[in-house]
This record gives sequence, C-alpha cells and structure tokens, in this order.
Amino acid sequence: MTDVAKQAVPAAWLDTVKWDVKGLVPAIAQEVGSNDVLMFAWMNREALTKTIELGRAVYFSRSRNKLWFKGEESGHVQYVREVRLDCDEDVVLLKVEQVSGMACHTGRHSCFFQRFEGSVDDGAWVSVEPVLTDPEHIYK
Amino acid sequence: MTDVAKQAVPAAWLDTVKWDVKGLVPAIAQEVGSNDVLMFAWMNREALTKTIELGRAVYFSRSRNKLWFKGEESGHVQYVREVRLDCDEDVVLLKVEQVSGMACHTGRHSCFFQRFEGSVDDGAWVSVEPVLTDPEHIYK
Repeated sequence: MTDVAKQAVPAAWLDTVKWDVKGLVPAIAQEVGSNDVLMFAWMNREALTKTIELGRAVYFSRSRNKLWFKGEESGHVQYVREVRLDCDEDVVLLKVEQVSGMACHTGRHSCFFQRFEGSVDDGAWVSVEPVLTDPEHIYK
Repeated sequence: MTDVAKQAVPAAWLDTVKWDVKGLVPAIAQEVGSNDVLMFAWMNREALTKTIELGRAVYFSRSRNKLWFKGEESGHVQYVREVRLDCDEDVVLLKVEQVSGMACHTGRHSCFFQRFEGSVDDGAWVSVEPVLTDPEHIYK
C-alpha cells in the first residue's frame, strides 16, 4: 500500500466520535495529578488527530476558525498523557501536564475561577483563584 | 415589592452567563474529593436556576427537549457543593457528591471510561473502567 492510499483510509477510531453538525466535539482538559479541570474548548477531526500525533493539546478555535495549538503564543503548552471518550462518544477528556501551571489566559491556574455565591434571588459570580502571572507578561 | 414583581426582575448572575443560540451552556460535573470528571451535559437558564435552588444537578436533555433532574430514574442524584463559571462565562463546572458513586448510565463511576490506545494510524477506544452495577438493576 502506498503512502497516499494509506492516508485515504479513514481511521475507525476517528469515526467512532460523534461530531456535531459543525464537525466539532467538546473537549475538557484535566490536570494529571491534581485532577483539576483546567479548561474547556472544542476540537474538530484534525485537532484530535494532531493532539494524538503530537502528544500536546490542539483545539479548534471557533472565533478564529482555525486550529489552535494550545500554548502557541503563551508557551503554556499542554502535554497530553491520556485521551478519553465518554459513553455517548461525543465528548473528549484530555489528561494533561500543564506547562507553567497556568491554563487560563487571565494568568490563572484554571479557567473555572468564578464561583457562584448567594442564592437564586441574590447571587453573584466571585473570582476565587489568584492571578499567578499578569497576562501582560504572558502575551508579548 | 410584591412576589410577582420580584420574579419579573431578571437575575444579573444568570445574564452574566453567555448562553448559546439555543439558550444552552455546556456543564461539566466533577466529583468532590476525588476530583474525577464524572460527566458532561447541557443546561438552560431554568436548569441552572433549579440546580442552585435545589442544590442538586438539573440539566437540559437535548434529546428529550426537557429538564433532566439527574437521578430522577436511577436514584443517582448529584448533590451540588459548588458551581463555577469559566473565564469566557460560557461553560459551567459543578462540584458534586455523586450518590452511589455512579454517574454513568452504563453503571460506571464516570462516563469517560473509554481510553484511546495506539497511534493515529492504528488506534482504538478501549473500555478501562469497571461496570459497578448492571444497568438492568439501575433502571427498572
């Protein structure tokens, strides 16, 4: 089989994933060790393939409409130790080592730094995680 | 202010959330203590309000097009100890106590029980978590 023919064969594992109408699936990044949920993003077929190929998280940026190699600007790369798929086969979970310990563009460890406090009638989202590095020093 | 007038005032914390075109946001359920990611689902405004009001996870089922009180059939309720919102304000993270320790309808602890093994050219999703209870005994 030539290389060209080989590339033309669709990967069964990739077809197992139930891509949505836009060809995307949600992806959750969880830190190895702490098990903290770091961030949430989206992947298309190419992003998931690249993630496995390179061993680092590659997402699909819906706002920029292109592949997003996590850490390409900040240096805060995510090395992927495990890739999981859920029971419905439409959500991916990455277990990652987070370079710098900061996944969030705000300079925080995790993107989920706002906690709900109060009640339904009188509630608020409150920032409860520290900024580790000023974003101005991350993105130059 | 009468009760009726009070209800008519939109909750600012609910408006902070960036609902998608279908009025939904992704929601991740993470277990308190182990920090395991248990499942992923969707919420509308009513589901998030009910979740906070009742202190238990209420999702919006896209397939059934209605509120889904997690555990309503299985008894596997999720008691919500914390609700988080991400930096973009379009993803919710619930920190939950999982009744029975099983979040998945397959009778497993977590829905993310399939692990990718192999390479891009020769990969597969492999079940790596045990079934704790036969689903036939969960749904009667």
